[in-house]
Amino acid sequence: MWRKYTINVMKLSIFITGKNNFEFISDGMKLYEERLKHFVVLNIRYFPEQKYTASTNTNQIKEKESTVIMKAIDSSDYVVLLDEKGKEYSSKSFATFIDKKQQAGSKHLVFVIGGAYGFSDELYKRANEMLSLSKMTFTHQMVRLFFLEQLYRAFTIIKGIPYHHD
Amino acid sequence: MWRKYTINVMKLSIFITGKNNFEFISDGMKLYEERLKHFVVLNIRYFPEQKYTASTNTNQIKEKESTVIMKAIDSSDYVVLLDEKGKEYSSKSFATFIDKKQQAGSKHLVFVIGGAYGFSDELYKRANEMLSLSKMTFTHQMVRLFFLEQLYRAFTIIKGIPYHHD
Repeated sequence: MWRKYTINVMKLSIFITGKNNFEFISDGMKLYEERLKHFVVLNIRYFPEQKYTASTNTNQIKEKESTVIMKAIDSSDYVVLLDEKGKEYSSKSFATFIDKKQQAGSKHLVFVIGGAYGFSDELYKRANEMLSLSKMTFTHQMVRLFFLEQLYRAFTIIKGIPYHHD
Repeated sequence: MWRKYTINVMKLSIFITGKNNFEFISDGMKLYEERLKHFVVLNIRYFPEQKYTASTNTNQIKEKESTVIMKAIDSSDYVVLLDEKGKEYSSKSFATFIDKKQQAGSKHLVFVIGGAYGFSDELYKRANEMLSLSKMTFTHQMVRLFFLEQLYRAFTIIKGIPYHHD
């Protein structure tokens, strides 16, 4: 649920396909989620993951997973897919990206971390932007943790707060 | 301690400055360390971190931290520093890099993850190569976790084993 704010503030959501499979992922995410709460109205939402079976193909999985995410996206949302084909930012340029979105009065910035097989064509078309964290491929579980840490780092850069060296 | 092998096998070490500050880092590292044991003789070694105080500067910290690492490096070791100025690999090209080192009969491949202030000039000079995980800056704690996962991924690629989609 969104808390009430008297100032105009951008909401930030992370849409994630599939539950966390490891405790260390959940634990790490919790740490950065707590820290982020000082800076932003953050909403992390988990969507169902489709299991791969003999009677399904990866296209069907992508379609099903993306369809529920599409339904949760509002027409005015600014949607960023975390995708290998996306743009690579430095931490500083990623902070600038978020800051500019805030300055421009964006109401809701949505980052989407998909499942193992990626997104449907429809979701690719709807997306405003794609972001890649690294040239390397990470698991969709690890990406959650990396991304939250980078988001926290971005806000420390925006606010000019020294980053905890840990 | 190295176990005895009848075949010629490359040892792989990760030298790390400073303890793990978070349990989720240790837990995640443990997971990939266990998985890596099936593929490689892996040695993770922690080195002391120098605390920043009013009477020290960052150069002194780098010097002290790097000196103990230099002492642990053998003249025949192939040394790779994890550094923002390093080369960015894809997961596949990183796997190829490791495979080539094995094929070439390298005896000991050493990856070094430094402290918050980086490495001394002497260690930069000694290094054979530098590797960057991302254009983004991650904490030196997180780099440990990312790197171990990529190392595990590299061996699944080398061995042609499907990666667990988790």
